Amino acid sequence: MEQLASIFEHIDAQGENYLARLMDYVSHPSISAQNIGMAEAAQLLCRMISERLAMEVELLPTAGYPVVLARSAKIAGAPTVLIYGHYDVQPPEPYEAWITPPFEPARRDGRIYARGVGDNKAQHLAHILALEAHLSVTGRLPCNVILMLEGEEEVGSPNLASFVSGHREKLGADFVVISDGHLHESGRPVICFGNRGFVSFELRARTGRRDAHSGNFGGVMPNAVWSLVHLLACMKDADGRITIAGLADEITTPAADEKQAAASLPVDIAAVRATLGFAELDAPTDRGYYERLMFHPTLTINGLHGGYGGPGTKAVIPAEAVAKCDIRLVAGQTPEHVLACVAEHVRRHAPAVEFVAKAGTPPSQTPLDSPYAACLREAVRLVHGVEPLIQPCLGATLPTHVFATTIGMPTFLLPFANADEANHAPNENMRIDCFLNGIRTAAALLAATATLHKTVDNTTSQPDE
Amino acid sequence: MEQLASIFEHIDAQGENYLARLMDYVSHPSISAQNIGMAEAAQLLCRMISERLAMEVELLPTAGYPVVLARSAKIAGAPTVLIYGHYDVQPPEPYEAWITPPFEPARRDGRIYARGVGDNKAQHLAHILALEAHLSVTGRLPCNVILMLEGEEEVGSPNLASFVSGHREKLGADFVVISDGHLHESGRPVICFGNRGFVSFELRARTGRRDAHSGNFGGVMPNAVWSLVHLLACMKDADGRITIAGLADEITTPAADEKQAAASLPVDIAAVRATLGFAELDAPTDRGYYERLMFHPTLTINGLHGGYGGPGTKAVIPAEAVAKCDIRLVAGQTPEHVLACVAEHVRRHAPAVEFVAKAGTPPSQTPLDSPYAACLREAVRLVHGVEPLIQPCLGATLPTHVFATTIGMPTFLLPFANADEANHAPNENMRIDCFLNGIRTAAALLAATATLHKTVDNTTSQPDE
Repeated sequence: MEQLASIFEHIDAQGENYLARLMDYVSHPSISAQNIGMAEAAQLLCRMISERLAMEVELLPTAGYPVVLARSAKIAGAPTVLIYGHYDVQPPEPYEAWITPPFEPARRDGRIYARGVGDNKAQHLAHILALEAHLSVTGRLPCNVILMLEGEEEVGSPNLASFVSGHREKLGADFVVISDGHLHESGRPVICFGNRGFVSFELRARTGRRDAHSGNFGGVMPNAVWSLVHLLACMKDADGRITIAGLADEITTPAADEKQAAASLPVDIAAVRATLGFAELDAPTDRGYYERLMFHPTLTINGLHGGYGGPGTKAVIPAEAVAKCDIRLVAGQTPEHVLACVAEHVRRHAPAVEFVAKAGTPPSQTPLDSPYAACLREAVRLVHGVEPLIQPCLGATLPTHVFATTIGMPTFLLPFANADEANHAPNENMRIDCFLNGIRTAAALLAATATLHKTVDNTTSQPDE
Repeated sequence: MEQLASIFEHIDAQGENYLARLMDYVSHPSISAQNIGMAEAAQLLCRMISERLAMEVELLPTAGYPVVLARSAKIAGAPTVLIYGHYDVQPPEPYEAWITPPFEPARRDGRIYARGVGDNKAQHLAHILALEAHLSVTGRLPCNVILMLEGEEEVGSPNLASFVSGHREKLGADFVVISDGHLHESGRPVICFGNRGFVSFELRARTGRRDAHSGNFGGVMPNAVWSLVHLLACMKDADGRITIAGLADEITTPAADEKQAAASLPVDIAAVRATLGFAELDAPTDRGYYERLMFHPTLTINGLHGGYGGPGTKAVIPAEAVAKCDIRLVAGQTPEHVLACVAEHVRRHAPAVEFVAKAGTPPSQTPLDSPYAACLREAVRLVHGVEPLIQPCLGATLPTHVFATTIGMPTFLLPFANADEANHAPNENMRIDCFLNGIRTAAALLAATATLHKTVDNTTSQPDE
């Protein structure tokens, strides 16, 4: 810890060098959805890690793209942090919306513009560079580190769970840190302790062989869109309360500190309203902004299509309609139970409607009082001079349950990117100060982890023991 | 009436000649929606009428295609029948689905195949040929006849109401007969005394500037599809009862003879189910088949579209959704009142949803005990040897209110086509026996009309008096 000031100095001195490294990395496309540059990017990472970090690095196959897994030489008795990131990026289309080409990184306005720079290359590169900085200044790493970089996050991490289950002996760590996403909208650093889960399903109504004339058969032939309207209306009422029996049964009541943390997070609702262009928050009205995103499952109709949608009018009774829906799950809920509740609701209220489950990801929740959180808090304090915001849960879904639940490791999100990083969008960017602060924060995290008095049972958390 | 047997003999003798006339007529395209052949068809009708019927014929302009209006030389004291038809036809697409080209009429299997043969050329040609037959056999028409053939029925008769209002002095008749549509599905001739009206409207929900991520904003941003689902669900309940305040206020309770007639109509529900491929009749369940089509307004969602509808899943909150709806009106209801009720319902329950009225046509109802119905019944009996079925109301909408209401004339539908005429579809056809029976029925109708002891006030119903 006493050497951290020297490490920060080193990072400051290396700033331009680190930026050049970043610009080189993001100049290599690695688009998982289009199978472009994936092998090259994985090889590049392996070389970078083996040449500069002196870590044991493996390129481990999955049913899709391989995982880059690097482990530091074991320091007996030292805590172990697992750092997860992903080397694949979103497709860059539409090209014409980019001010500079997506894989020709450009520096302007204090930012680096390139596809994948914020999501997620600059963020895991920050961890790699922090490891390099420790090695350069002190000749050693202060704690045990496992670096796990997958290549399928942007296509839904279809093989992550089986990979983690299958390699649990190589992944034993005290806690997991994921630097993805962005700082709080207010600009403050934030630590996130969990995220909502996700299920999606389709409701398919077919009430006839073909659309029929609404005059000749109006009142006689059932209407597929009406079938879905009435089914959906009895799944969530007009006040926004989900009315599917049993769906809430598993929900864990948020702990007092989680409620307190949610209520304490700053939010500029007027700014959110202005950005998205809505007039009032969604029903129910009696919930705080972050409470909505953390403690309550949603039932979202992603799309509903049936019948005529062209210009003018067409007097038909639609014979077919499909609704695509998703539910965000909160702590305690399981995809299996939630999907079973929906299936039973459909069976009971609209047995002729076909229910098709599509996907499920469990939620993840690490307690706010996890002792490992102290490492992340300390790292943020050392770099930013402020306490991080504490966000119990992210509204969106990440594959963190594979760490937090499947192999039972406390899992934290410690994002480095600016809130306006435009990930998944044209002109994705990373502010240079955010990138350099990310390297500093990652370096401080390693130092803080080294000083941690371990409070968990070594036999379950130490690798290779 | 005593000469009708001779007229029937004449019609029988002229059968092949009449068929040749029909095949010539339908070989001329007259597609109003595509402005193909309209002037030629109107001229052809004018020539046919002036040369063969010795009626005064006018081609009267409208804001769209002209109306062919022919009036027989006035027989003082004789009743007047107005025969309405339309010379325009539906577009023939898709061409590749036709066994023989749509405007190259083909005779096979006892039918004539051509676009527009059933809808409506063979049917109004049957009336023209019946007039010719009377003239050929007796040298005179037995009653006064007004023949009105419009060219815009297939595009919604946009100028019919103003035409009828503007030429009411030329249209004075005792009653109106429209031969369009088809015989009852059972094969029995039918007389229809009215039809449902129609309004259509759109409900447009916009809950944001753009779709948003269902994880980042699920629970926060309102969902346009949910807005429509909840609005629609409070417009008609799951039991199929319309719940829009005031919508039913104007409905005239069906007369006892109308209820009796509806209940007496034969129906093969299993055949309808098999044809359209539905399992159960639409809710509410406590209504007879024809009662559903005659005495109850519908609320049909013609289409509902919002959010993602492509393959797989997309985790979005839709910011925009549109529902297109129609309502079939029953006797007593007015489009103005019904649309006002819907608008008020939307304003009260979902004020942020935009309501856009699109179209309105009033229903039409002629009492079953109208004295003029006797002429049609007698004509059917004379040709078919059976009583016609009495259908108080057609489920679909026709522009008959312009006769029944605007100028207050009892209006009847007396269809000649076979039930499987495939109107609006490829391989439209008219059975030859139906065509010839149509000519006989039209001839008998003129004879029966001549013998009618008029029971209405001549001063309001006689033209040119």
